[in-house]
Amino acid sequence: MEKRVRLLGILFLIVTIFSFTILAEAKSSNALVIQTDFGVKDGAVSAMKGVAFGVDPEIKIFDLTQEIPAYNIWEAAYRLMQTSSYWPKGTVFVSVVDPGVGTERKSIVLKTKTGHYFVTPDNGTMTLIAETMGIDQIREIDENINRLPGSKESYTFFGRDVYAYTGARLATGKISFEQVGPIIKPTIVKIQYQKPSIIGSTALGTVPILDIQYGNVWTNINKDMLDKLGVKVNDILKVQIFKDGQLAYEGEMLFVNTFGDVPEGKPLAYYNSLMDLSFAINMDSFSSLHKIYAGPEWSVTVEKVKK
Amino acid sequence: MEKRVRLLGILFLIVTIFSFTILAEAKSSNALVIQTDFGVKDGAVSAMKGVAFGVDPEIKIFDLTQEIPAYNIWEAAYRLMQTSSYWPKGTVFVSVVDPGVGTERKSIVLKTKTGHYFVTPDNGTMTLIAETMGIDQIREIDENINRLPGSKESYTFFGRDVYAYTGARLATGKISFEQVGPIIKPTIVKIQYQKPSIIGSTALGTVPILDIQYGNVWTNINKDMLDKLGVKVNDILKVQIFKDGQLAYEGEMLFVNTFGDVPEGKPLAYYNSLMDLSFAINMDSFSSLHKIYAGPEWSVTVEKVKK
Amino acid sequence: MEKRVRLLGILFLIVTIFSFTILAEAKSSNALVIQTDFGVKDGAVSAMKGVAFGVDPEIKIFDLTQEIPAYNIWEAAYRLMQTSSYWPKGTVFVSVVDPGVGTERKSIVLKTKTGHYFVTPDNGTMTLIAETMGIDQIREIDENINRLPGSKESYTFFGRDVYAYTGARLATGKISFEQVGPIIKPTIVKIQYQKPSIIGSTALGTVPILDIQYGNVWTNINKDMLDKLGVKVNDILKVQIFKDGQLAYEGEMLFVNTFGDVPEGKPLAYYNSLMDLSFAINMDSFSSLHKIYAGPEWSVTVEKVKK
Repeated sequence: MEKRVRLLGILFLIVTIFSFTILAEAKSSNALVIQTDFGVKDGAVSAMKGVAFGVDPEIKIFDLTQEIPAYNIWEAAYRLMQTSSYWPKGTVFVSVVDPGVGTERKSIVLKTKTGHYFVTPDNGTMTLIAETMGIDQIREIDENINRLPGSKESYTFFGRDVYAYTGARLATGKISFEQVGPIIKPTIVKIQYQKPSIIGSTALGTVPILDIQYGNVWTNINKDMLDKLGVKVNDILKVQIFKDGQLAYEGEMLFVNTFGDVPEGKPLAYYNSLMDLSFAINMDSFSSLHKIYAGPEWSVTVEKVKK
Repeated sequence: MEKRVRLLGILFLIVTIFSFTILAEAKSSNALVIQTDFGVKDGAVSAMKGVAFGVDPEIKIFDLTQEIPAYNIWEAAYRLMQTSSYWPKGTVFVSVVDPGVGTERKSIVLKTKTGHYFVTPDNGTMTLIAETMGIDQIREIDENINRLPGSKESYTFFGRDVYAYTGARLATGKISFEQVGPIIKPTIVKIQYQKPSIIGSTALGTVPILDIQYGNVWTNINKDMLDKLGVKVNDILKVQIFKDGQLAYEGEMLFVNTFGDVPEGKPLAYYNSLMDLSFAINMDSFSSLHKIYAGPEWSVTVEKVKK
Repeated sequence: MEKRVRLLGILFLIVTIFSFTILAEAKSSNALVIQTDFGVKDGAVSAMKGVAFGVDPEIKIFDLTQEIPAYNIWEAAYRLMQTSSYWPKGTVFVSVVDPGVGTERKSIVLKTKTGHYFVTPDNGTMTLIAETMGIDQIREIDENINRLPGSKESYTFFGRDVYAYTGARLATGKISFEQVGPIIKPTIVKIQYQKPSIIGSTALGTVPILDIQYGNVWTNINKDMLDKLGVKVNDILKVQIFKDGQLAYEGEMLFVNTFGDVPEGKPLAYYNSLMDLSFAINMDSFSSLHKIYAGPEWSVTVEKVKK
C-alpha cells in the first residue's frame, strides 16, 4: 500500500516533468522574420523557410519583405529600422541583401540593447538598427558548426545555408546566442548618410525612402525637430526639395494630422507612422506628380510660414 | 499515510488544471486574416504582424491579399466576400483600405450571422459581407482601451495601432467581442451597385471584378438566374458587354463546365468559383483581347440562343 | 483508503493518456507548402488556405510561390525540384498550375522515395521531381471522399475544393496516404526536355530557367559534368548560347565561386544554389544585357580554354 502510493507519486512526478518539458518546448519559439531582395517569383525564399522548418516544426516564420530592390542595402537597413520595434524582444530577424555573398564580408548576429537579434552579412544592413536600438553584442557566425549540413560546396546561397539555418536555431532555442560564434568588436560597416539638422528657423533633412504604394515622400526630419521650430497642426509649411542641390520642388502646404484633413488633390505635410515629417497629396501621388524620389542625392528644407 | 494520499490528490488536481489551462490556451487562437492596399514592398504589413504576434505568440496569421489597388474599397469588399466563407467560424478578418484614415469614419468590428468577425473602418468595405453573411452585431472600437500602448501620437497607421492590435486580441481570446467597445446600430456605409435582374429572356448584370491573373471576366449573374432562363451546359449564349451604355463586345459562346471544354483560343461562358457567370478564352485573356474591364460603368446582357 | 489510491491511480492514467493524446495531436502536422500560378492579387490563395485551416487549425501552411507564370507547367516542375529537398520528409506540396482544370487529366498524390508528398494534376508538373526524388507510389485522388463538402457544383477551382483540402488532410494526419484513393501505375505525364551531355571536351546543355530577380542564367550542366572536363576555380570558360540553334551569345569568362570574385560589371561562370553551372554579371543582369532567356529553344555549349 505504502509502496503503491510512493510509486504513484514518482510516476506522477515523471509525467509532470515530461509534460512540462514538452509544453515548454512547444512554446519556446520566438518569431523568425525574414527579409531579402530575392522576390517571391522563384523558390529561394521557400527553400530558406524549408530549412528553418526542418530545424523545428514549431517555428513561427514571417516575412518582413522579400521585395527589397536587388542589392539595395540602404533600403534593407531602413525596413529593419521601420518594423523591428513592433516585434517583441527575442525576435530573430534574418536579412539577406548580400551582393558580396561568398566573399570576405563577415556573417554576424547582432544583439541589440532591446533584446532583438539580427542575422545578416555585415555590409551596412545594420546602419540604422545600430543607431535606434543600440548594439549590445555582436558575434561572428562560426560556419563550421552553424551551416546546413551538406551545403559546404555552395558559395552563393548563404541565405539558405547559413543565415536561415542559424536564425532558426537561435529562434527556437536549439542554440544559444553564445553558440553562434565568437564575440567580435561591437562595430559594424556603416552606410554614410546626412543626418537632419536645424539652422536658424529652418529644418534640413533628406528623403531616405518613399512610401511607394501611395507615392508619399518621407523625410528624416522628426517630430522633436519640428517641435523645436514650434510647428503645430494647421500651420503652413514652406517646403523645398532638392536633387543634387538643384531645386526640384517648392511649395507651401498645410501641416495636418492625416490625409483627409485637406481636400482631395491637395498637398499636405504630416507625421508618418514613424513620426517623421512626410509630404503627400490626398488621394494622389506626391512622388509621381512632382517627380520626387528617395536616396542620398535628395535633400529637403522646411520652415514655418509666418501667419 | 492518509495525509500523503490527500496531498498527492491535491497536487495531481493542481497540475491537471494547470496543464489543461496551458493546453486550452495553446489551442484557443482563431485565424487572423489580413487584407490591405499596402503592398508588400515595405514594412507596413510586417509591422502589423509584429503587433499581432506581440499580443500572443501562438496566434495564427494569414494574408488575404495585401495587393488591393490603393484606395479601392469596392475591391476590398469583393475579396472579403469571395473568401471569407472558406475560413471557419470565429475567424477574424482585418481589412485596411482606409483613404479616410484618422478622420471621422468609424472603426468597427462587425460580427456576422455566420460567426465571422471583421475589423475595419466603416467606409463601404462591409457592403457585400453584410449581404451575403448577414449582420449579427456591430461594435465601435473603443480606442482608449483597444489601441497599441504608446501609439497615441500616430494618426496615419490605424492598421497597425488599432486594427491589427484589436483583431489579434479578439482572435486569441485576450478580449471578448463585448470588450471591443459599445454596440452601435447594425447599419453600415454601403457602396451603391447595380444588382442583377431578369427581363424577359435576358439576364442583366455587371462586371464587378476581373479574374486578373488570367484575364477572365466575372459577372454578378449567378447560377439561380441562369437556371430560371433554362440555361444548360452546351447551350450557346449571346453575350453583350457595355461600357457606360456603349456596346464594347458582342459575341456568341458555348456555355460549358470548364476551360478545356472548348479548343484553345476559343471563348467560353462558365460558372466561376463563386458560381457566377464568367467569360474566358481557353489559354488566353478575354479582358486583354476585347479590352473589357471591371467596375460600375460595365454592364452585361446574356440570353440563350435558340437552337 | 485502498480504494482512493486506486481511484487516484486510474484518474492519473486517464489524464495522462488524454494529455499525451492532445500533445501528440498538437504536434502531428507536417508542413503544407502551396504553389500556384494564381498570383496574390485576388483571394484565390487565401480561399485555399482557409479550407486547409478549416481542416485543422494547427496546420502549418507555407507558400512555395504563387507567381508561376500562368499555365507554365515547366516552371512549376522546376520550382518543386529546386526547393522540395530543403523541406523535411513528410512535407505535403500542393501544386496547382492546371490549364486543364475540370477535364480528364488525373488528380494525383505522388509519394517520393524520399518521403515527400505532391498533390497535383498529373499534367507534367511531376517531371523533374520524379527524376530527382524517385517515385515510391502514386494514388489517384478519390474525389467522392476527398473533396470539400458542398463544392460539387464548382468545376474550375480544384485547387481549393480538392487539392488544398486533400493536402491539408494528409499533412495533418486526418487521412493516411492510403485513404487518398486507389494506387495507380507509377508513371506520370512527362514534359520532354533536352538532357545535358558531354561531347569530346565540350559540355552541352539548356537554359531551363532564369534567376529572374538578378538576371542570372542557369543551365542544366551540373558539377559532375564539369568535374569530368577538369574545370576548376579560376579556369576560363568559353561559353556559347544559342536560340533555336542560332548563336545568341559568345564569350569567355572566369569560372569562380561567387559574384564578388570578379570586378563589378564583369561576367562570371559559377555554380548556383543547385550546383548547376550558371552565368552572371557581378552587380548587373546577364539576361537583360545579352538578351538571353530560358526555355526549350535555348541551348548552351561550354568548354575550358587552354591556358
